[in-house]
Amino acid sequence: MNAPRLPGSVGIVEAKKATFDEPLRLKSGAVLPAYEIAYETYGRLNGARSNAVLVCHALNASHHVAGFYADDPDNVGWWDNMVGPGKPVDTERFFVVGSNYLGSCFGSTGPASINPATGRPWGADFPLVTVEDWVAAQARLADRLGIERFAAVIGGSLGAMQALQWALAFPERVRHAIVIAGTPRLSAQNIAFNEVARQAILSDPDFHGGHYYDKGVVPRRGLRIARMIGHITYLSDDAMMEKFGRQLRRAAPGFDFDIDFEVESYLRYQGEKFSRYFDANTYLRITKALDYFDPAADFGGDLARAFARARADFLVVSFKSDWRFPPARSREIVKALLDARRIVSYLEIDAPQGHDAFLLDDARYHAALAAYFRNIVL
Amino acid sequence: MNAPRLPGSVGIVEAKKATFDEPLRLKSGAVLPAYEIAYETYGRLNGARSNAVLVCHALNASHHVAGFYADDPDNVGWWDNMVGPGKPVDTERFFVVGSNYLGSCFGSTGPASINPATGRPWGADFPLVTVEDWVAAQARLADRLGIERFAAVIGGSLGAMQALQWALAFPERVRHAIVIAGTPRLSAQNIAFNEVARQAILSDPDFHGGHYYDKGVVPRRGLRIARMIGHITYLSDDAMMEKFGRQLRRAAPGFDFDIDFEVESYLRYQGEKFSRYFDANTYLRITKALDYFDPAADFGGDLARAFARARADFLVVSFKSDWRFPPARSREIVKALLDARRIVSYLEIDAPQGHDAFLLDDARYHAALAAYFRNIVL
Repeated sequence: MNAPRLPGSVGIVEAKKATFDEPLRLKSGAVLPAYEIAYETYGRLNGARSNAVLVCHALNASHHVAGFYADDPDNVGWWDNMVGPGKPVDTERFFVVGSNYLGSCFGSTGPASINPATGRPWGADFPLVTVEDWVAAQARLADRLGIERFAAVIGGSLGAMQALQWALAFPERVRHAIVIAGTPRLSAQNIAFNEVARQAILSDPDFHGGHYYDKGVVPRRGLRIARMIGHITYLSDDAMMEKFGRQLRRAAPGFDFDIDFEVESYLRYQGEKFSRYFDANTYLRITKALDYFDPAADFGGDLARAFARARADFLVVSFKSDWRFPPARSREIVKALLDARRIVSYLEIDAPQGHDAFLLDDARYHAALAAYFRNIVL
Repeated sequence: MNAPRLPGSVGIVEAKKATFDEPLRLKSGAVLPAYEIAYETYGRLNGARSNAVLVCHALNASHHVAGFYADDPDNVGWWDNMVGPGKPVDTERFFVVGSNYLGSCFGSTGPASINPATGRPWGADFPLVTVEDWVAAQARLADRLGIERFAAVIGGSLGAMQALQWALAFPERVRHAIVIAGTPRLSAQNIAFNEVARQAILSDPDFHGGHYYDKGVVPRRGLRIARMIGHITYLSDDAMMEKFGRQLRRAAPGFDFDIDFEVESYLRYQGEKFSRYFDANTYLRITKALDYFDPAADFGGDLARAFARARADFLVVSFKSDWRFPPARSREIVKALLDARRIVSYLEIDAPQGHDAFLLDDARYHAALAAYFRNIVL
């Protein structure tokens, strides 16, 4: 295809699907009989098959990491500032794979997919999937693509958990694990926010116990609340103050429950938008995957012992203003990696935006990532 | 009455009501034709009427500050550890008044009260009340009780806003303003959390636009969510981790949406309990009162200019682990008071509990308050 090449863009891309008929036994004990994984690739796998990079996405993203679709040019990949020709993850040099996690509502098999046993959407019957399950499914995708070993597995937030899990589950298949804005496990506060979001969805009368697909409704009230809570935790207090302050949307306070402040308008808009495209059953499951992830749990809480089996080199990046997964949590990872005698570089970026900084275009952050990737020998 | 005196307790107390027939013009422009204020008093007003202390309560509390009711001995006042004989606010020395704010659901006139114009509950028609309105109503209560000037007005959180507002609205009527875990105005993040709570209530199908009293339902789903969010912001991340950690409630993760973690159980319990006794219309109005409070707004955002008219001495107390109204916000108040040439003492307590610390029994905190009150000359 003769793709128009914007400077630094991978250009037109195409979403693909890989179908797997071999059942996947999940951590819960449930078995997924067959499934599809949606993915995209950018750049070319070299002859030695040594230049593959897996990008793992967070809660609200997908396999659409970079570029745009021919029939939807405004739909630019979520990490397009990071992945592309001449960008930190340089597609002139690397073969980049973006893969959508199991249970998603963006292409991979999930709760809205058809349950082969019933011929109707899985709904509430779709099993809970974990970070471990996602990585197991991604490994099969790697097999399918002929990638025995990734030059790097990279992800931010929930994606960072996947990068960690890759290094633990498939030590020989990851040369570099790049763990951005991550945490070795959720704190009680993190779980608490997830639980409020879940309760908002579960208690929405339109949830129908998760079987809402054939009812002609979706639990949009709950999704809106869940997303609003999420957004608060993605931004730093200072960033919110900088962005919205106490700016009013109308000339004077209204003394009613319409929108007074800019920040209310922002949150309502984000909640409304999200509720129109995201699936509630997926949201519930992702928050559980986050809550459950705890690689140290099988080692008496000793993260260093958990990391003992890793073979990758690590780059750990945190953002000073991130209060969702603050730098202290990244430092726990770094400390445990050092105790486990792994090679680790650590970078704490003084960015003001909060957790969301991992998605943004910070020059120091991108320069560091670019340098790290340049130093990966192919 | 021959009250049994527990050590340090004011013993049996009685809730009283003061009825005001003079209309109250609210900040919104609305007029409340008549209203009742629920209150309690402890100790004795001295002959010089110089020993009165007003205690202002926060979101979820009431005029029941100390002691217990004869017919409900387990219902101990919310600040019983602070107010009583020999306690920091010593009722052997001070005459203490606890007053319930307008719009409450605990005794003062509020949305669940009867609207004299219709003979039915006010519901959605109850006007939005502000911190300024509360203080105006409290001033009338003080008149009624024969208190021209308070030795001190004290409050934590939302109560701290009232203490500040007293010093600004009635400079000659407050000798000491004691501002605990307060803020001069909400941040965008504070407003954001309030807005999510409001949306949870407003979007609950049982809310019925605020006129649910005669429908036989209350928007309990929304109230539960609102309270869960609140609780997260009242506790520090560390305190939550200390209290709940990642402790499971069952032997192993359930891979469903029942309770896995202790912190989920705690939040669900708190949300459920709250939804059984708190009124949704009151909750909505209190969050708005919080959002709107901004004494600097009339002075181009210059808090020092706002404070220029205050005459009280100030004690400002903050708690290091409070991320709802962190010490930096209290320091803004202190800085502005110093710029306004007021006398101010500032205390930052290294307590781990977060915002809720102002209610708890911290020895350094209580010792400092006790010393401050001892030094108040009557």
